[in-house]
Amino acid sequence: MIYRVNLTVTPLENVKLPMLSSKVIKYLIASGQFLSELKELVLSEQKYKQIFISNLEMDGRRLLNYYKEIRANTVLKGFISFSHESLSPTFFSNNYNMFKTPYGKFYVNVSRVDIMDIRELNTEIEKNINKNIKITFKTPLILSPKLLLPPSLKEKFKKVSNIITTFPPPGLIVAYAYNLYCSTFGKKYIEEKEFKLATLVNGLTVVTGYNLRPLTVEIGKSKYRKERKTRGMVGWMEFDTHYEKLKKKIMKYLLISSYLGLGRSRGIGLGEIMVDFISQDKKTNSLSHISL
Amino acid sequence: MIYRVNLTVTPLENVKLPMLSSKVIKYLIASGQFLSELKELVLSEQKYKQIFISNLEMDGRRLLNYYKEIRANTVLKGFISFSHESLSPTFFSNNYNMFKTPYGKFYVNVSRVDIMDIRELNTEIEKNINKNIKITFKTPLILSPKLLLPPSLKEKFKKVSNIITTFPPPGLIVAYAYNLYCSTFGKKYIEEKEFKLATLVNGLTVVTGYNLRPLTVEIGKSKYRKERKTRGMVGWMEFDTHYEKLKKKIMKYLLISSYLGLGRSRGIGLGEIMVDFISQDKKTNSLSHISL
Repeated sequence: MIYRVNLTVTPLENVKLPMLSSKVIKYLIASGQFLSELKELVLSEQKYKQIFISNLEMDGRRLLNYYKEIRANTVLKGFISFSHESLSPTFFSNNYNMFKTPYGKFYVNVSRVDIMDIRELNTEIEKNINKNIKITFKTPLILSPKLLLPPSLKEKFKKVSNIITTFPPPGLIVAYAYNLYCSTFGKKYIEEKEFKLATLVNGLTVVTGYNLRPLTVEIGKSKYRKERKTRGMVGWMEFDTHYEKLKKKIMKYLLISSYLGLGRSRGIGLGEIMVDFISQDKKTNSLSHISL
Repeated sequence: MIYRVNLTVTPLENVKLPMLSSKVIKYLIASGQFLSELKELVLSEQKYKQIFISNLEMDGRRLLNYYKEIRANTVLKGFISFSHESLSPTFFSNNYNMFKTPYGKFYVNVSRVDIMDIRELNTEIEKNINKNIKITFKTPLILSPKLLLPPSLKEKFKKVSNIITTFPPPGLIVAYAYNLYCSTFGKKYIEEKEFKLATLVNGLTVVTGYNLRPLTVEIGKSKYRKERKTRGMVGWMEFDTHYEKLKKKIMKYLLISSYLGLGRSRGIGLGEIMVDFISQDKKTNSLSHISL
């Protein structure tokens, strides 16, 4: 099962949020004060870990590069998503309380829990198979293009490290989602399968519309007070894949990522996405290309 | 040699331009009235043909979806690019004149001829090897993602035809430019080489900035007065590729395309691009990604 625990987070005094604002919820769990069963997962250094901690939201917007003070009693929203096989019966027992953090005092309350049952995904997929897939990137998506290299060349380009693209093609997005899917459900990750998947998605996917832009975010200060930044993509992209068998897989992997996010730094709320299925617009689809 | 023949095109009466406005220049050549040595190339149905006919420009903008009347004596700009091994000495002899077309009377004048010597490309490339590559898409780029499929799967997906993506990853752009390069210089096109090239470019390229959007253009009416439209991408994209040997190839292929365009319908002025090399901004490049 995958859970999304929706929270309201209310500062009880005027506070200055950390960069990123997700660190408030992260601190609560990491310090063992809140949903302590997740502490280990939050602190884990595992690459495709099955947890997502959102940034805090005010007036419908995630607070990323936010320098201003938040006034006491402002209701902020956030969520934690994770996959778990068997939560203890007392998991949600301590589900509202007042907490002290290095960023100030907060009242935190579980407002709703969404549960995704992987066994019900197929119904959702069948129902929407003729629609376009729309991904909304609510916070910057941080992806290395190197995930698109064939297994045979990964060793050769090992020294090319830490490269991030702000224009990830659909195949790169799906390759990441496949990795996360394998890690979440303990499926065997196969490098060749990932490469073939990414290549096919790139070769058979038509992006029909988008509104995307690169965005730089500050993710805190290092020990030496040097600013640390990263740069990713926000906005939305709508597409269709012209191979039903492949499209079903894409839908499955992306639905998992609609809970657990995409790309790096999901543990601090980057790569938050929404996935929607959109009826194909007759007008757009009739645009055929005629060579002149 | 690759030539770009820059023209001024001045209507001698009020005219309504065709969709697309490139058809004025195309008509002049196809009817044998102007630069008649190019007639055969203009009429050829060859896929990667080495000619580009631009749309007409007014006030710095290419006229695409343009319904209004153009007033007499408005100076419009345009160009024809092509590769040719040995132009006849009289090629430019009839280089200004008044012409009748189905769209009205025009005075056409060759204002400047730019010549690209392929042998001098390497100097240009060496000089700019440490810079980012910036492509400006002046008119919609029309590309099928299928160029990214591995040769072994092209047959299987043969029936998936006429699909166009508005979000072409760098590898797709470079794959097309490679095809055009082979066709232009009579080099042997190798499918496996194209696939490896596209895959490596996608895997090692970091897009650092962009401002792109999909754009639908009307490309005329069919016999049955049905509108014909196509949809591509306009804007700009800046990127770097982290493998020098590969980057040199990319630069070479794209410089050819800066004369001859990219993608489908270059013969009517779609896929017009500009290529610039931009000093890498220290600020942008210091953005390293740190996992938290």
